[in-house]
Amino acid sequence: MIPERVSEEQWTRSLRRKRLRSLAPLHLNLHHRRQTSRAMADMTTDRASAGAGADRFVLRALAVPDFHKGFMQLLGQLTVAGDVSEAQFAERVQRLGDDHYVAVIEDMEKNQIVATGSVFVEHKFVRNCGKAGHIEDVVVDQSVRGQHLGQRIVEFLTRFAEDKGCYKVILDCTIQNSSFYEKCGYKKKEIQMAVYF
Amino acid sequence: MIPERVSEEQWTRSLRRKRLRSLAPLHLNLHHRRQTSRAMADMTTDRASAGAGADRFVLRALAVPDFHKGFMQLLGQLTVAGDVSEAQFAERVQRLGDDHYVAVIEDMEKNQIVATGSVFVEHKFVRNCGKAGHIEDVVVDQSVRGQHLGQRIVEFLTRFAEDKGCYKVILDCTIQNSSFYEKCGYKKKEIQMAVYF
Repeated sequence: MIPERVSEEQWTRSLRRKRLRSLAPLHLNLHHRRQTSRAMADMTTDRASAGAGADRFVLRALAVPDFHKGFMQLLGQLTVAGDVSEAQFAERVQRLGDDHYVAVIEDMEKNQIVATGSVFVEHKFVRNCGKAGHIEDVVVDQSVRGQHLGQRIVEFLTRFAEDKGCYKVILDCTIQNSSFYEKCGYKKKEIQMAVYF
Repeated sequence: MIPERVSEEQWTRSLRRKRLRSLAPLHLNLHHRRQTSRAMADMTTDRASAGAGADRFVLRALAVPDFHKGFMQLLGQLTVAGDVSEAQFAERVQRLGDDHYVAVIEDMEKNQIVATGSVFVEHKFVRNCGKAGHIEDVVVDQSVRGQHLGQRIVEFLTRFAEDKGCYKVILDCTIQNSSFYEKCGYKKKEIQMAVYF
């Protein structure tokens, strides 16, 4: 049965992803964070399905040493990153709980972080005390754009949220970036509003 | 100095809110959850500034007994609420941490929850490891709409996030509801995209 508010196309895609997962081999590249077996299979899928770039561009969880691999500078291509110390960075990484995952792609030739995105799981009361995933802060380094690294990040984060039991994943983006997210399976829904202090 | 990306109008409003807070008297109506002194002052402000409806409509944090005051039925006016047991509800209330606040307005004449909204604080890496507030699941009971209860909820949640140190608060809504959020100080920014499982 197709769940409410899911198009047939989305549902087919979801089933295809589940099939891919079940076939995933077990070559893992995990750093730092405890993973569930499902998330480990996801990572493996990501590597295995990434083709020729898989050996050069490795997707994994953010780790403390990434402070010296250009992670904050990469975020600076997205918005104001600020002047974060190594200690502050390490503290923030270490306080990421099980419901907050920051994915990175490392360029193994240059030992640099070249793509990132995060997802956190909101525990709600609606939908039978359901969960919703929120994707934030997706950015790919200018030098490696056009190689589908952003899509790898977003698809990984989406699967992560699905495996956590989320009934949906949402994100906000500019009109210009909406076609990119459509390639990742997302559809336009509402509008975002904001207040800045 | 007006912070980056904040309009003068937003900044003026923010200052006005801060002034209101500093003048707030201390008649509190707190249930159940531990509050910071700032948030307590906020609640007081909300009551004090609410005019004639303040005695009948009291804003406070969600509490376990609200299961019997129509909280889940109220959410059912927003989306699928589901069939949540009292034990499941209590567990969910009790696991709300310091970064997740569910506000409710109780109609003291009927002992019913007639408005709600939530905000949670996302800990980011951008903006000097800054914080962003996310407002979700705002709904006002059909029988009491037009009495500015939704505005009280949203303005309270916005202040809560500001007091937590957030540099912004964001939310998603329909085009039709955007004028309501504009009255609460919000401006249209991006678009929301979603995938449902």
